[in-house]
Amino acid sequence: MYHFNCDYLEGAHPEIMKALSETNFEQHIGYGEDRHCENAALLIKDKCGDPSVAVHFLVGGTQANTTVIAALLRPYEGVLAAKTGHISIHETGAIESSGHKVLELPGQCGKITAAQVEAAVALQGNDEHIVKPGMVYISHPTELGTLYTKEELTALYETCQRLQLPLFIDGARLGYGLMSDAADLTLKDICTLSDVFTIGATKIGALFGEAVIIKSKAHNHNFRYMIKQRGGMLAKGRLLGIQFETLMKGNLYENMAKHAIEMANKINAALKKKGIPLLMESPTNQLFPIFDNDTLKALEKDFGFALWEKVDATHFAVRICTSWATEEKMIEALIQRLLSL
Amino acid sequence: MYHFNCDYLEGAHPEIMKALSETNFEQHIGYGEDRHCENAALLIKDKCGDPSVAVHFLVGGTQANTTVIAALLRPYEGVLAAKTGHISIHETGAIESSGHKVLELPGQCGKITAAQVEAAVALQGNDEHIVKPGMVYISHPTELGTLYTKEELTALYETCQRLQLPLFIDGARLGYGLMSDAADLTLKDICTLSDVFTIGATKIGALFGEAVIIKSKAHNHNFRYMIKQRGGMLAKGRLLGIQFETLMKGNLYENMAKHAIEMANKINAALKKKGIPLLMESPTNQLFPIFDNDTLKALEKDFGFALWEKVDATHFAVRICTSWATEEKMIEALIQRLLSL
Amino acid sequence: MYHFNCDYLEGAHPEIMKALSETNFEQHIGYGEDRHCENAALLIKDKCGDPSVAVHFLVGGTQANTTVIAALLRPYEGVLAAKTGHISIHETGAIESSGHKVLELPGQCGKITAAQVEAAVALQGNDEHIVKPGMVYISHPTELGTLYTKEELTALYETCQRLQLPLFIDGARLGYGLMSDAADLTLKDICTLSDVFTIGATKIGALFGEAVIIKSKAHNHNFRYMIKQRGGMLAKGRLLGIQFETLMKGNLYENMAKHAIEMANKINAALKKKGIPLLMESPTNQLFPIFDNDTLKALEKDFGFALWEKVDATHFAVRICTSWATEEKMIEALIQRLLSL
Amino acid sequence: MYHFNCDYLEGAHPEIMKALSETNFEQHIGYGEDRHCENAALLIKDKCGDPSVAVHFLVGGTQANTTVIAALLRPYEGVLAAKTGHISIHETGAIESSGHKVLELPGQCGKITAAQVEAAVALQGNDEHIVKPGMVYISHPTELGTLYTKEELTALYETCQRLQLPLFIDGARLGYGLMSDAADLTLKDICTLSDVFTIGATKIGALFGEAVIIKSKAHNHNFRYMIKQRGGMLAKGRLLGIQFETLMKGNLYENMAKHAIEMANKINAALKKKGIPLLMESPTNQLFPIFDNDTLKALEKDFGFALWEKVDATHFAVRICTSWATEEKMIEALIQRLLSL
Repeated sequence: MYHFNCDYLEGAHPEIMKALSETNFEQHIGYGEDRHCENAALLIKDKCGDPSVAVHFLVGGTQANTTVIAALLRPYEGVLAAKTGHISIHETGAIESSGHKVLELPGQCGKITAAQVEAAVALQGNDEHIVKPGMVYISHPTELGTLYTKEELTALYETCQRLQLPLFIDGARLGYGLMSDAADLTLKDICTLSDVFTIGATKIGALFGEAVIIKSKAHNHNFRYMIKQRGGMLAKGRLLGIQFETLMKGNLYENMAKHAIEMANKINAALKKKGIPLLMESPTNQLFPIFDNDTLKALEKDFGFALWEKVDATHFAVRICTSWATEEKMIEALIQRLLSL
Repeated sequence: MYHFNCDYLEGAHPEIMKALSETNFEQHIGYGEDRHCENAALLIKDKCGDPSVAVHFLVGGTQANTTVIAALLRPYEGVLAAKTGHISIHETGAIESSGHKVLELPGQCGKITAAQVEAAVALQGNDEHIVKPGMVYISHPTELGTLYTKEELTALYETCQRLQLPLFIDGARLGYGLMSDAADLTLKDICTLSDVFTIGATKIGALFGEAVIIKSKAHNHNFRYMIKQRGGMLAKGRLLGIQFETLMKGNLYENMAKHAIEMANKINAALKKKGIPLLMESPTNQLFPIFDNDTLKALEKDFGFALWEKVDATHFAVRICTSWATEEKMIEALIQRLLSL
Repeated sequence: MYHFNCDYLEGAHPEIMKALSETNFEQHIGYGEDRHCENAALLIKDKCGDPSVAVHFLVGGTQANTTVIAALLRPYEGVLAAKTGHISIHETGAIESSGHKVLELPGQCGKITAAQVEAAVALQGNDEHIVKPGMVYISHPTELGTLYTKEELTALYETCQRLQLPLFIDGARLGYGLMSDAADLTLKDICTLSDVFTIGATKIGALFGEAVIIKSKAHNHNFRYMIKQRGGMLAKGRLLGIQFETLMKGNLYENMAKHAIEMANKINAALKKKGIPLLMESPTNQLFPIFDNDTLKALEKDFGFALWEKVDATHFAVRICTSWATEEKMIEALIQRLLSL
Repeated sequence: MYHFNCDYLEGAHPEIMKALSETNFEQHIGYGEDRHCENAALLIKDKCGDPSVAVHFLVGGTQANTTVIAALLRPYEGVLAAKTGHISIHETGAIESSGHKVLELPGQCGKITAAQVEAAVALQGNDEHIVKPGMVYISHPTELGTLYTKEELTALYETCQRLQLPLFIDGARLGYGLMSDAADLTLKDICTLSDVFTIGATKIGALFGEAVIIKSKAHNHNFRYMIKQRGGMLAKGRLLGIQFETLMKGNLYENMAKHAIEMANKINAALKKKGIPLLMESPTNQLFPIFDNDTLKALEKDFGFALWEKVDATHFAVRICTSWATEEKMIEALIQRLLSL
């Protein structure tokens, strides 16, 4: 049985396991102030092309999102996000638990636009009875595996800057976005066209870990207090430093993402060949085919998917994810079965 | 210049001012434990037909809504409400500031249905990554002046009970709902068909004040701690007791509401006669006519309205409110001007 | 039976009741943007000797304290206060409910010192595992009726400024402090030697009301959003404007406070004559005599006090409060009884 | 240079690293619902001697403390804890950020007593202006390395039960308490004499991880929602399961703790021999010697300690920690140097 339910089914890339073992007996100060964290931060700054950014390492995505948002907003401000955004629906109200409203915008395939942000701010109109939009959250790739183009992100960021709204990009799956065949944005672009962003590693080959990159000194002020208070400051911070060092010192992060994309592309091609419709075209490591019930039932005997949504009485959309750990033989088995039905 | 912008433009009904003056030198213990509060609570219990309910008095609506919702929900729960609900859009994120998400449902003229509640609970499906619906909030009349029928409210409450979701009715303008020509629900019905509700006085003739009626002992447990913590416990609680005593001991509350309804009905008839379209049909003290820009400009010289929403390039919807303080002569002046245009 | 339990046993000074009645039918915009609020703010600015301050009107003290503190602090910051401070013990954790720790300092008769603030900041030492002191809260008079001298407040404020900690003075009973025989600070001094302060009216002759005075534009930025979110924005804001106008346009506020001080002084003299010890010397409208149980029992038949604390098996400290409404005959009756025991 | 600053200077025990490597390619469902977590929970239930408890795995201590406390308290309730407790001073206000006051009690060497809890509840006296004690937090060992006796804990728990206050034991260093020569409490005792407790692994040989054990179904209700919302639900939950499986399937956890205790005992004996005073007698893996400045300066060249507190102008107390990773040779080097001074 092969599972494609998500991109965090296995442990970590062997290079990471090796690095953790090799450094196991080093004695390091805690809480992310060790030299591995320092080095990993330097490597990230270098890849971003901006030595002035601040880099922090947190354990998980909900933690990272809540901490960043709670740090940037004033109490009466909310965060604009797509209705399908991770913070809108999949974090059990973590943002609200920190006191802030998620101002949900209808998305187009998970994306929001500069015009929507502009309209939301106009609607609020400095009326003190209405939550003030205080920042903008997007994910790249989105929760639906789609990507912003450089033009779209540029327009969004320019609008945010004009309206003095920080733009925060959730990069839980950033690598897959960067290495997609449809990629129009580089890591340097992401850094240039946002105020805060994350580089996710949990879903791209690490045991866990999200790097938070903050550009402005004001946004970064006392950010470590926020991490600690929100429960995100790992005692053995070295674990984050060592993992990100390993991911960033060569191209391990990019290569793993590239492999996952290639695997997804093969499945995508087979789905198209078989005439299976997709919920939407997604150019990253997540695919959303719509199977008829018989096909789904047949495939489920040997392959695991995430059930996404019921399309109609006889069809169901599922999510298929690939990752660094997806082997050719898994893909081949899936494709073969699919084409045989 | 006559203003119809809202239903809290004047002070309080003279009977209330008189009662406050007459009791001014009485010495009373603070925080709502004086005998006027006690008496007012008894009068309300009597009108509700249920001596077992608990009655609390708070100063304002946002306070009352936040306190009730924060008292009833567990941290990971949210409150289902219409997208146009007061807590959704007009309280600057007060509910979120207490840690809870407002789970917004598209409303029909401000109302939500049993089926929507059912679907929202089904969608959550006990997935711990998604905010759990923990209660339902409606307002009666709604923010758009519309009313639930007895059939609608019965269906909603039965669904809530089956799903173990407390139903909270915001009655900021409850009197207007009870005295509307279209009223299908009595105060006793409201009490029977909800778990917690408020009787608003700020908008119906008092200086301020919202009575919170709680039916279950479990919901009422330590509720006074919540009031104090959320800043709603008035030191001179007598002021609330005296006002509600005055409103409730005869039919002052109902009579004031009835007067406002009659005044609104006259304007409504004139609007119809003149062929002015309405944003929606509202049977209470709020009317939402759509004026063309010329008409609006002409009327605004002598009459104040709340600008509600731009309908198109040449039309604007406004809100006209009547209240206990709306005099016949004001109505006549408005109607005369309108018909003369 | 005469009650001296607190200074908010009666309604409001007749001048206030008169002003409310006379303006009752004026039509005013809501939420504190009417001309009475505007005028009251001007009068306060004038008395403070600083036209550049911002003035807001809130209903009650817990509301005012929570709103100011939540507005000024970052999420990881706490507020330094005396262990006996109102926010430390008598607000049901309102400050904590807004996410902030009250960093309690042992007080001397309710007061804290510049040296204590300095030491608290030194102890925190920029360690991100410890709550960062973000502001200082004092009350003047304190909860124990004591007063800061000009020298003490100057030292405290200079320390706060050097450490970049805003100083917030809770003036729930400010008038009594200003009019005490021991007063060393004027209203202008209070304004000069703090960043934010309140002028309380609930306990000095109004139905309710706390004026919040904010000196810096940064602290005042979007403060009205905070008021609304925290439930403190009164719909009929006029009520606050009219009351503060009445209190501030002549010397009604000061005269009422002066009267209460005179009444308290008479009781104090009688207590001394009788040899009754005091829990502490308090020069304002609150006295804390320690009665033996027999004396207390005898007095309680005809006079109400607040039971303060058990001193030993045979003695109890009570609080006696005077106010604008305390009549000579009440004082005489109490003194006569006391001296007769 | 050997460091004794804390007990989380190294990675994890080699057995844990081995288990993580061996299971690395297994495909597991996320969020703690895999079979390793299930198995680890069974092993813990078995060691606790109570198959009815619920077991959850979180990443870190601040997370675990905040999540448990936020889950158990009502909004107006606070948690009683020693002034030196971890939640009181070393979590950047995490508890307050969830809306609750830490009600600090003066501790004796880090411990609080049944009588103190009783007095705190009596003082609150159901006064709704005062935060209601809603639970009790202790740590065992305490932050100062001291231990509760069975008699003390029994008295505390009986008092808690009588007062209906859940007792929560923070066991961040529980193993060191269980294996101390002075241990008077077994794991089964801990489970019997508390409502919720944690078994800490971060400080006893794991990469990270705290097991939260909850006895009552009511306290456990929807606890996973709380974990998710507070950012503590690890995507690759397997990592926690595998680590706790390894720690609990034999006696690895106990053996590591025992080793650390033995190492600490040797240092303790040497300190005594040398006549070095201790800040307090601690029978676990933490020692608090008071060095004169010359001694400290000499030792610091080759050995790392945590600077704890300045005792006087010429003396400083430091903390020395041992752990699973402390080798005999490190201890010998330290002792030799110490005795040579």
